[in-house]
Amino acid sequence: MATFYRPAASTATIDVINVRSGRQSTSTDRAAVEEPLEIRLHGRPFAVIMRTPGADRELAAGFLLSERVIETADNLGAIEHCTDRAAEGSANIVNVTLVDAARVDEFLDAKRQVTTSSSCGLCGRRTIESLAVDVSPLPVEWTIQSSALTALADRLRAAQAVFDETGGLHAAGLFSLEGQLIEVAEDVGRHNAVDKVVGRMVMRDALPLSRHMLFVSGRSSFEIIQKAALAGIALVGSVSAPSSLAIDLAAAVGITLAGFVRGDGFNIYTHPARIQS
Amino acid sequence: MATFYRPAASTATIDVINVRSGRQSTSTDRAAVEEPLEIRLHGRPFAVIMRTPGADRELAAGFLLSERVIETADNLGAIEHCTDRAAEGSANIVNVTLVDAARVDEFLDAKRQVTTSSSCGLCGRRTIESLAVDVSPLPVEWTIQSSALTALADRLRAAQAVFDETGGLHAAGLFSLEGQLIEVAEDVGRHNAVDKVVGRMVMRDALPLSRHMLFVSGRSSFEIIQKAALAGIALVGSVSAPSSLAIDLAAAVGITLAGFVRGDGFNIYTHPARIQS
Repeated sequence: MATFYRPAASTATIDVINVRSGRQSTSTDRAAVEEPLEIRLHGRPFAVIMRTPGADRELAAGFLLSERVIETADNLGAIEHCTDRAAEGSANIVNVTLVDAARVDEFLDAKRQVTTSSSCGLCGRRTIESLAVDVSPLPVEWTIQSSALTALADRLRAAQAVFDETGGLHAAGLFSLEGQLIEVAEDVGRHNAVDKVVGRMVMRDALPLSRHMLFVSGRSSFEIIQKAALAGIALVGSVSAPSSLAIDLAAAVGITLAGFVRGDGFNIYTHPARIQS
Repeated sequence: MATFYRPAASTATIDVINVRSGRQSTSTDRAAVEEPLEIRLHGRPFAVIMRTPGADRELAAGFLLSERVIETADNLGAIEHCTDRAAEGSANIVNVTLVDAARVDEFLDAKRQVTTSSSCGLCGRRTIESLAVDVSPLPVEWTIQSSALTALADRLRAAQAVFDETGGLHAAGLFSLEGQLIEVAEDVGRHNAVDKVVGRMVMRDALPLSRHMLFVSGRSSFEIIQKAALAGIALVGSVSAPSSLAIDLAAAVGITLAGFVRGDGFNIYTHPARIQS
């Protein structure tokens, strides 16, 4: 019988405003929990992974296999959650000991030569504590009609439909407050598509993008919101669901976060004041 | 007018076997190109990102903004592709110079403390050359009926439908050759879900998984195939599209790669000998 690795904490109850044909109602919904997991080797930081809590020890074992730190179970000593329950975030730390302790330095040194990957906006922060984004909350300086938001989804989809013949590309679009598509990019990685459109504006010296809106074809993660916040973008919409940490970060930095933008409806998760009913 | 950052090289023509109700036919299709991009600071390796080629300079600028290496265009000197055209892979290297060259060491040192993110299976390789997976090609030791493969998709979806109330979780399932669901996990990151099911088998000392099949709910990337290869999994199926590099890697390591597994049909991209028509 298959074991399903899914604790109760893998989803969180959230308050949401449902918008349908311009009419707003409130309800509760569930969001997938996203939290950082720090993997330590013999007590020393090795990696921080954004993940859904649950099966953390298994995740660490699989990750270390992929990273070539272990090859078989014989290489593994213990895999344990941080036992200092008094420490905040201890549930998000897993410590791994290897049978061959002499190789730990080698792996930590090898990691130091390295960096990042397709959806990596968190690299550069060594510990979980350092994930916080220290940007000033974005003020509410404008509003849009709800119909203007649903129009963005259609416009991005139309632009993407022309180009995405593979079914394998994510799209990100940057729009003016008037709904004009300013920049759009596609990539196998959602985060890359966002970096491309924001990077273009950086190169034009057009930051902060406080009078622009970002729309992404997939889901909204912590990193998408982090990228938007650093660019000064105050409204992010997506076709699919946001994670719990995306919602938390959007709430903290003053970003209006909308999800499931489809047809004439969407959900608002944070800072609804920018969207008129 | 929006600029669409999309060169011809962002999709690749691939040969594919279409399977519908057990009948096979051959055709060509398009796959999203996935290739590593190495970002250098003043000539020194800073990050490797899996991305779709195109708008590489913009991607680098946006990535460096997210990594807090730059804050405005004023911090940027030049962003240039590697100009050594004789060097293989030079199109996949972007060199960035900062106005404040004195800070380069600081950023490179900061990176050394760090590591990885949700979909990161490539961390630990400093340069593009080191991405190759040095595993022995998996031999063809068994076959399955095409109907057995489509059944996996249904079984994973059924297991996920029970649990995923958020629309925001990816699932990965590990199946026996008889189609039994052995392990399943959900996560905001597809790669994490794979690490969880593989990691559980590592902890059981059950590797190599040469008589198991992996099924993922989303797309197949290079990293998914890399994780499967390291675990000895010889067949990978997914609900959606594979990237070009996933196909290339699966071909190289002997993995049967199927995609768009929906209803009674799917596409086979590599090593079709394991699937009977």
